[in-house]
Amino acid sequence: MSNPFYKNNGPFKLSDVLNILNIKDSNLNSDKEIKDIKDLNTSTETDITFFHSKKYKDIAKNTKASFCITNQSLKTELPNNCIPLVVENVLIAVSKLTAEFYPDAINDKFDESASNIEKTTHEGKVKHGKNVLVGENITIGLNCSIGHNTIIEKNVFIGNNCSIGSNTVIRNTIIKNNVNILDNCVIGKHGFGFFPKNNQNLRYPHIGIVLIEENCEIGCGSTIDRGSMSNTLIGRNTYLDNQIHIAHNVKIGENSIIAGQVGIAGSSTIGKNVKIGGQAGISGHLKIGNNVEIGGGSGVIKDIPDNTKVMGYPAKKIRDFLRENK
Amino acid sequence: MSNPFYKNNGPFKLSDVLNILNIKDSNLNSDKEIKDIKDLNTSTETDITFFHSKKYKDIAKNTKASFCITNQSLKTELPNNCIPLVVENVLIAVSKLTAEFYPDAINDKFDESASNIEKTTHEGKVKHGKNVLVGENITIGLNCSIGHNTIIEKNVFIGNNCSIGSNTVIRNTIIKNNVNILDNCVIGKHGFGFFPKNNQNLRYPHIGIVLIEENCEIGCGSTIDRGSMSNTLIGRNTYLDNQIHIAHNVKIGENSIIAGQVGIAGSSTIGKNVKIGGQAGISGHLKIGNNVEIGGGSGVIKDIPDNTKVMGYPAKKIRDFLRENK
Amino acid sequence: MSNPFYKNNGPFKLSDVLNILNIKDSNLNSDKEIKDIKDLNTSTETDITFFHSKKYKDIAKNTKASFCITNQSLKTELPNNCIPLVVENVLIAVSKLTAEFYPDAINDKFDESASNIEKTTHEGKVKHGKNVLVGENITIGLNCSIGHNTIIEKNVFIGNNCSIGSNTVIRNTIIKNNVNILDNCVIGKHGFGFFPKNNQNLRYPHIGIVLIEENCEIGCGSTIDRGSMSNTLIGRNTYLDNQIHIAHNVKIGENSIIAGQVGIAGSSTIGKNVKIGGQAGISGHLKIGNNVEIGGGSGVIKDIPDNTKVMGYPAKKIRDFLRENK
Repeated sequence: MSNPFYKNNGPFKLSDVLNILNIKDSNLNSDKEIKDIKDLNTSTETDITFFHSKKYKDIAKNTKASFCITNQSLKTELPNNCIPLVVENVLIAVSKLTAEFYPDAINDKFDESASNIEKTTHEGKVKHGKNVLVGENITIGLNCSIGHNTIIEKNVFIGNNCSIGSNTVIRNTIIKNNVNILDNCVIGKHGFGFFPKNNQNLRYPHIGIVLIEENCEIGCGSTIDRGSMSNTLIGRNTYLDNQIHIAHNVKIGENSIIAGQVGIAGSSTIGKNVKIGGQAGISGHLKIGNNVEIGGGSGVIKDIPDNTKVMGYPAKKIRDFLRENK
Repeated sequence: MSNPFYKNNGPFKLSDVLNILNIKDSNLNSDKEIKDIKDLNTSTETDITFFHSKKYKDIAKNTKASFCITNQSLKTELPNNCIPLVVENVLIAVSKLTAEFYPDAINDKFDESASNIEKTTHEGKVKHGKNVLVGENITIGLNCSIGHNTIIEKNVFIGNNCSIGSNTVIRNTIIKNNVNILDNCVIGKHGFGFFPKNNQNLRYPHIGIVLIEENCEIGCGSTIDRGSMSNTLIGRNTYLDNQIHIAHNVKIGENSIIAGQVGIAGSSTIGKNVKIGGQAGISGHLKIGNNVEIGGGSGVIKDIPDNTKVMGYPAKKIRDFLRENK
Repeated sequence: MSNPFYKNNGPFKLSDVLNILNIKDSNLNSDKEIKDIKDLNTSTETDITFFHSKKYKDIAKNTKASFCITNQSLKTELPNNCIPLVVENVLIAVSKLTAEFYPDAINDKFDESASNIEKTTHEGKVKHGKNVLVGENITIGLNCSIGHNTIIEKNVFIGNNCSIGSNTVIRNTIIKNNVNILDNCVIGKHGFGFFPKNNQNLRYPHIGIVLIEENCEIGCGSTIDRGSMSNTLIGRNTYLDNQIHIAHNVKIGENSIIAGQVGIAGSSTIGKNVKIGGQAGISGHLKIGNNVEIGGGSGVIKDIPDNTKVMGYPAKKIRDFLRENK
């Protein structure tokens, strides 16, 4: 996970962390410092991580974190270097602690720091339309253009030779070279991630970003949410058509082609050289392999291995789908 | 139905109403005054109502309206207090009469009354971005924020602690406290309601509003149409993800969760504690019960009773769907 | 095909064309002038055309073009008046040549020519909101209105009595009389047309336009892409609901009704008096007849003859769909 854009309020002492998590355990060295909260994969020995589902058992075994928020039944899976902090609801505990590390990453109110580009140091360096706004912590490369009424909110890096359309809103996003983003997109907002609670749901922080690799194109009216604990990624030379929705933490490989109105739910991973037909939907937390072709209108609710063509709802091998529907 | 926002051109004398409807009936007291046109449920004795489908038989029996536009075969279902006015096409007649009561509610041209918020009495009372426009008859509560380029057109009430994103357009809408509306939404426009007619369809007025209860969230790029004769309602603490379309007269209960790209067609009612997966679609005029779960990608074409989990197209019990698709 | 909006860099001598296509053929009269590149149907004897799929065999037989880019196996289908220019990949060759004729039609960067309408000759002639931008080569008829923040980019013709909503972007489009386009639409951008190539896809020019006939309505948040070699067409009195995606080269007949979130993939033709339910999707290159009804949520992957009602995914006769799903 890379989160260059959010101010880390840490380090916290372990005693503070235990306090926030409402854990009483006098056997722990409460003066130990914790610098960051990260996922199982990317955390180092100065970090705290979390482990909430059997699905991540193999990754948990190899985590380098010194502490891990988990529950009673999963704690035995952790390696010796990692001390389990047992709570009842792992995700709510993670949410509370992340909000302490990154208090700015919970809500997505409009960026008050944005001002007219003509009054900033970007003026003269980027071709732009009327009424373009840019916030703080923005880098824009050479030979870029930004369309009318577009708002580059805070925390955006744009490479060289990029064009951003009109009426688009971007924040918390890294855009590499030669990327085209068309009109009316919203990129980098928090995902649809919260804990349902009667009367008032509990939003959790989204400290990931959107990372769009070189040579990509994003069609009109698309929305790409930033990640919660990891990043949302659009791989090199991947093209998205209009009105596509990419949820938080989704990772799409390179050279993929995604047609209009496709939706990919949270935390799914799409391989490289993947083709997805119009209006197809992919459920959350799935793994779609490389060189996969998904027919238009399909509803994918299971992992798909490499080199497979599927179609239907639920999606099955396209041969079977066509035979059953002759 | 509550329509605080449209100027009522009434009352009309019954003779005028008969004239508009092209009805000749000398037995009626043509001097009687009619104050408003409302649906069967909400009309009182000074109102005229309408009854066009057997489906509403039970409600019709209890209407308090003194007059009812209906047809030959339904008129016998009305109670004694309600005089039937028989026409050939009930909905076209209602449309014509509503247009006389509410001439402003037919088209949705841009709000010419909108001016820069900095020139209005809202300045200094609400945190706002650049180029925010507000129209007439707008109330904004305490501690609200409105993003860049957003247009609050006429007839909008916003409660306390609300945040409205950027590039959003809102009109004819009541928003209660603690509501977040994200970027690029369009809320309160007329629905897709008209009478098809070769060469030139006939639009009917939409005199309902959109009512968003407390603690709701509306995702980026969503559209919520206002009601035609009743209101469109989003219940308390209900969260909508990105790119959702809610058609006119839809009513969604509290504590519901609706994932990305879902579409709900006109006049359907969704219960409370309902979960709807991404890209699911719900046909018009359906009743979805409380505590229902609808799987992603489903196409719902029938009513769903309380406490039911469904999936598929057409949606069926999820157990059956998964068994048939092993 | 009509492309009134793109500057034609031609004519080119045949020798130049052969050079661009990398063809060596000393038997041809290399001084012959070629004025334009057009599709099989519309080209005349001063034009070059292209023929890449058996599907267009019957049209190819009657082309009036003097030259045709094609491949080894199709060249024998051409009439005597038309000299085949054989290449390995027809579409890539067409793309290269079209880019020479119409260099401006490849990318869709924001229109730098657009300026505030108040500073143009349109001021005083059209009712408009705040911050409306208009580009070059714009005609606006009588009694029109344009909403706030809307951008009419270059090459747009708007007839009489039209209303354009707010936050909408339009370019390369002809809009006839009495058309309503609602908020947050993007109309006239290039389609999702390119040649997939590892590391860097190859975009081809889109020299078609969008043509919206009289009395149409286009709902909020819709996207209509312009054609590549032919036009995208919305027929007279056809109504589109919100969040609809119409891809390049699609042609929709008159008096059709298309509900929310429908998507129509590239080059499909929809007849007249067609009704399409919400969220239905139609694959590319299909022919949907007149008076067809397509149920909500359907996925259409085959041609549909006139006067047919279909539903399902894949769409089948609605009678069969309902019987199989009782």
